[in-house]
Amino acid sequence: MTYCVGMLVREGLVMIADTRTNAGVDNISTYRKLRLHGNDGKRLIAVVSAGSLSTTQGAMHRLAQGVHNPETGEDDTLDSVSNIYQAALAAGRALREARDGMVSLEQQDVNFNASLLVGGSIDGERTRLFLVYSAGNAIECGPDTPYLQIGENKYGKPIIERALTYDTDMYEALKIGLISFDSTMRANLAVGLPLDLLVARAGQSKAELVHRIDHNDAYFHDLSRRWSDALSHARAEIPTPPYGPGPLDLLSKK
Amino acid sequence: MTYCVGMLVREGLVMIADTRTNAGVDNISTYRKLRLHGNDGKRLIAVVSAGSLSTTQGAMHRLAQGVHNPETGEDDTLDSVSNIYQAALAAGRALREARDGMVSLEQQDVNFNASLLVGGSIDGERTRLFLVYSAGNAIECGPDTPYLQIGENKYGKPIIERALTYDTDMYEALKIGLISFDSTMRANLAVGLPLDLLVARAGQSKAELVHRIDHNDAYFHDLSRRWSDALSHARAEIPTPPYGPGPLDLLSKK
Repeated sequence: MTYCVGMLVREGLVMIADTRTNAGVDNISTYRKLRLHGNDGKRLIAVVSAGSLSTTQGAMHRLAQGVHNPETGEDDTLDSVSNIYQAALAAGRALREARDGMVSLEQQDVNFNASLLVGGSIDGERTRLFLVYSAGNAIECGPDTPYLQIGENKYGKPIIERALTYDTDMYEALKIGLISFDSTMRANLAVGLPLDLLVARAGQSKAELVHRIDHNDAYFHDLSRRWSDALSHARAEIPTPPYGPGPLDLLSKK
Repeated sequence: MTYCVGMLVREGLVMIADTRTNAGVDNISTYRKLRLHGNDGKRLIAVVSAGSLSTTQGAMHRLAQGVHNPETGEDDTLDSVSNIYQAALAAGRALREARDGMVSLEQQDVNFNASLLVGGSIDGERTRLFLVYSAGNAIECGPDTPYLQIGENKYGKPIIERALTYDTDMYEALKIGLISFDSTMRANLAVGLPLDLLVARAGQSKAELVHRIDHNDAYFHDLSRRWSDALSHARAEIPTPPYGPGPLDLLSKK
């Protein structure tokens, strides 16, 4: 499993990915799922991936070699695409080719699907963020719902849904994302530390922050403890349900 | 979709179910998913259901008619079983028969699976709680993880996982369950009010509380607002991430 989130607020882009992969609970490894291309002031393309590791690695390999673009006749790479939308489409083609190549290998209960988040800015364009599906299609993140998730998204969704708006500060968004990861890691062993994160200001092609949160990260431990304590306190402050014994046979069949 | 939770703490049993069913987002209805049998001081069997409504209704119909028990040769109903474990097994057989009866109708993308929580106490036995799967098998709730969920379980799991222990007060458990529903309903439109709930003291075969929380329930609205405010406050109290710009080319391929 995997959990990745991308948040695109007015100030810029935040992307976070865990690093745990597993083939069954008895076979767990650490793989980097946040990949950066460029990050040189001209071109910033950040890709995070969830799903079949063989499919996403196959897709990234194809993307490095060049993926045929039927509209232009050219082979696209992350170095050649001229904007992030084209990067997302090229990644989608690569993903679909990689997955289709696996179909002949498919056994029962083996799923070769995968999905990507592709975000960044090329040559001064506005920063954009896309979710790329296995089929190769993509959706863009917009201000109304300024985040996209892939992988194990449900445990960590409520906190983002409650807290994040397009006008949230970029580092507040990062904090919200980390709380979301804390909830997810508590609920699903297949999502785990270290976490890789990226923060990039809107319109910039060089990340402001690239960081790995490992098992000894003091801030993340403090965040986890504070959040847990605060939830406990918040719960204690809510009054006990006032419902008295109702008509006891309300639901009875008798 | 549906969300149901059962919590079995030292003091007793709490079960909560929503009432929303949907066949696509354009076809949403309200159906009671918490069913009580007996509740007369001698026999309390509470059943909540998630999954295909036709399967669970078919199962409940079979259970009322009598489900063949291959071990005894008898036909079991919820009125004839002598303990909650037998009730769970009979419900499992009914569920499996109902589902298997649908297989011939299966079309692509239609799923006739369903699951149940069966809890209660018959003739003074200790109160027990089971999760019954589509295949007819069942697992029992125990003190180490004193809750079971069916349906849309992920959004609302983190709060229960953090807060609930076997020694939690029964009405505190109810509160935790309601917070869990609040998070779930915010994240998934296919889970919705009204909520049906049941509270029964350990070893009792008559519920202490049977209640429906509808759209006008003042306590539930207050709980939802307080929880939202408290989360917002808790988040504000956590310091901003301290990570400075790291080695910017750490992840770069260049």
